[in-house]
Amino acid sequence: MLVWGDGGQIPTDDRGLAYGDGLFETIRVSRHSPTLRQRHMQRLLTGAACLKIPLMASDLEAAVNSALARYRRDTDWVLKLILTRGSGGRGYTPTATPAPRLIASAHDMPTLPDPAGVSVCLSDWSAQVSGPFAGLKTLNRLPQVMASEAMPAGCYEAIMCDEVGRMLEGTRTNLFLRIGERWLTPPASQLAVSGVMRAEVMARLAQQGEPVFEQPLPTALMEHEDCRGLVLVNSVVGAVSVRQVGTLRLPVDAGLATITGHAFLME
Amino acid sequence: MLVWGDGGQIPTDDRGLAYGDGLFETIRVSRHSPTLRQRHMQRLLTGAACLKIPLMASDLEAAVNSALARYRRDTDWVLKLILTRGSGGRGYTPTATPAPRLIASAHDMPTLPDPAGVSVCLSDWSAQVSGPFAGLKTLNRLPQVMASEAMPAGCYEAIMCDEVGRMLEGTRTNLFLRIGERWLTPPASQLAVSGVMRAEVMARLAQQGEPVFEQPLPTALMEHEDCRGLVLVNSVVGAVSVRQVGTLRLPVDAGLATITGHAFLME
Repeated sequence: MLVWGDGGQIPTDDRGLAYGDGLFETIRVSRHSPTLRQRHMQRLLTGAACLKIPLMASDLEAAVNSALARYRRDTDWVLKLILTRGSGGRGYTPTATPAPRLIASAHDMPTLPDPAGVSVCLSDWSAQVSGPFAGLKTLNRLPQVMASEAMPAGCYEAIMCDEVGRMLEGTRTNLFLRIGERWLTPPASQLAVSGVMRAEVMARLAQQGEPVFEQPLPTALMEHEDCRGLVLVNSVVGAVSVRQVGTLRLPVDAGLATITGHAFLME
Repeated sequence: MLVWGDGGQIPTDDRGLAYGDGLFETIRVSRHSPTLRQRHMQRLLTGAACLKIPLMASDLEAAVNSALARYRRDTDWVLKLILTRGSGGRGYTPTATPAPRLIASAHDMPTLPDPAGVSVCLSDWSAQVSGPFAGLKTLNRLPQVMASEAMPAGCYEAIMCDEVGRMLEGTRTNLFLRIGERWLTPPASQLAVSGVMRAEVMARLAQQGEPVFEQPLPTALMEHEDCRGLVLVNSVVGAVSVRQVGTLRLPVDAGLATITGHAFLME
C-alpha cells in the first residue's frame, strides 16, 4: 500500500515502527528524473528479498512514477522511500502474508558541502553490521543517529570505525582514500550501508582504468607519505574532499578529481 | 505526546519509523497492576537517557496510569509502550529539542507455553549488540525479527548466539542454565535485551543463596554430565523449561523449580 508523506499517517502497529522492520532509499531527483534510479531500485528490491518483504519491481516503479508526478519540482529535490513489512504479526514473528507499506515523501536538497573540502570527525560509535544485513539500507539506524547526534558543530560528517578502529564509512557517506595511484574503499561486506554512489564510482573508476582495492582503512593510512586525500560520496550530494579529520589535515590532491569532478558524477 | 494504539496513527516523519530511533517495553498487567512495574519503568528511563530522548519519570508514570484506566480488563493483558524521538531533524541528526512520542497499546496475553517444557532451536541469526546499546530494548530489532521468521513450526523460541557460537539469548527470552548447584546466564553487557525478568530472577536467586554466574553459554555445556536443564524467562510468560534444543534432549531437573515455580515468579 502506498502512503504519501505529505500529511499521510501510518497505524501504530506498523512493523517499521515496532522493530525497524523495513528498508529505505533516499534519491536525488534532478530534472524530473531520479539519479542512479536503477541502482536505487535494485538495492531496495535486493533488501526486500533478503528480509522476505514482498515487493514487485513493477509496483515499485509505478510508485516512483506516481511520486515523481505528485511532487514535481523544477529544482533538484530528494525522494525518500520507506518500505515496511506492514502491520501485524505475533510479536517478532511476521505474518505469513505481509501487506507491506511503501511511504513516499519529498524533501528539499540539503545544503551542499563546500567544494573546497569539509572537516569531519572520527566517531566513538562503531558501525554495527552483521553478515546478512551488511550493506542493506534497513530501518535499524540507531548507530548512525547517535554518531550524528555526537558530531561537533562545524563537522560535516562522522566517520564510523570497526571494533579495531579502522575506518568503514560515514553516517551517510562511503569513503574512498587515495594512496599513490590506488583507490582504497572498505569492502561492501563490512559496511552498514553499501551506497549506490559508491557502486557507481567503483564502476566508473574501473572504466577509467583506476584500480580500486576493497579493504578497511586504518587511520594511519591518512598519514602515509603517498596519501593524496580522502573523498566522501553519496547519491544526494555526489562527492566531496575531506580537508581535515579531527585535528589531522589531509592533502586535497588534484588526483581526487577523478571522483570529485562534477562531470564524472553527473554526466 | 501520548498516542493511543487503538486507532491512533503517527505521522510518516516519526523517527521511530525512519531509523528505529526509540525504545519499547512489553508489560504484563495482572489484576490491574503492571508486573515488575518499577523495573520496566527504570529500563525505559535508562534507555531514554542513553539515547538522549527526553522523558520525565512523572510523565511516564502518568501515561501508564492513563493506559491502565483506558484499557482496563479483568483478565491478564499486555501493555506495550513505544517511545520515539518524535518527528523531524535533518537526516540522522536529531533536533536539539525533540518532542518525543509515547505510544500505548493493549494486547491479549500470548498462548502460555506448555509447563512441561518447550522445544527450541539454535538460530543462524546472531544477536547484534554494540557496547552502548547492549541490553536496551531499542526499536532496532531486525535480527530478532529474522530469527523468529526462520523458526521451524512447533519451535517455541530461537536461541541467538555470539560470533563464536555461544548462546546469548532467545529472541524474546533470557537464558538460565543449571550446572550442578550453579546457575549460569550470559552477561548483560553482551545481550541485545537485558530482560527485567532476568534481573528479577537474579535478585531472587541471590536472596535464596543460589549462586548465579554471568558468562556466555557454549552449547557443549548442555551436554555436560552435571547439566540439570535450561530455563527461558521473560516478563510476560514468566519462566519455562526447555526440553529440547534442536535434536538435543535436555534434562528437566526438579532443581529448575527455583525459577520455574509459579510462586517464585508471581508472589
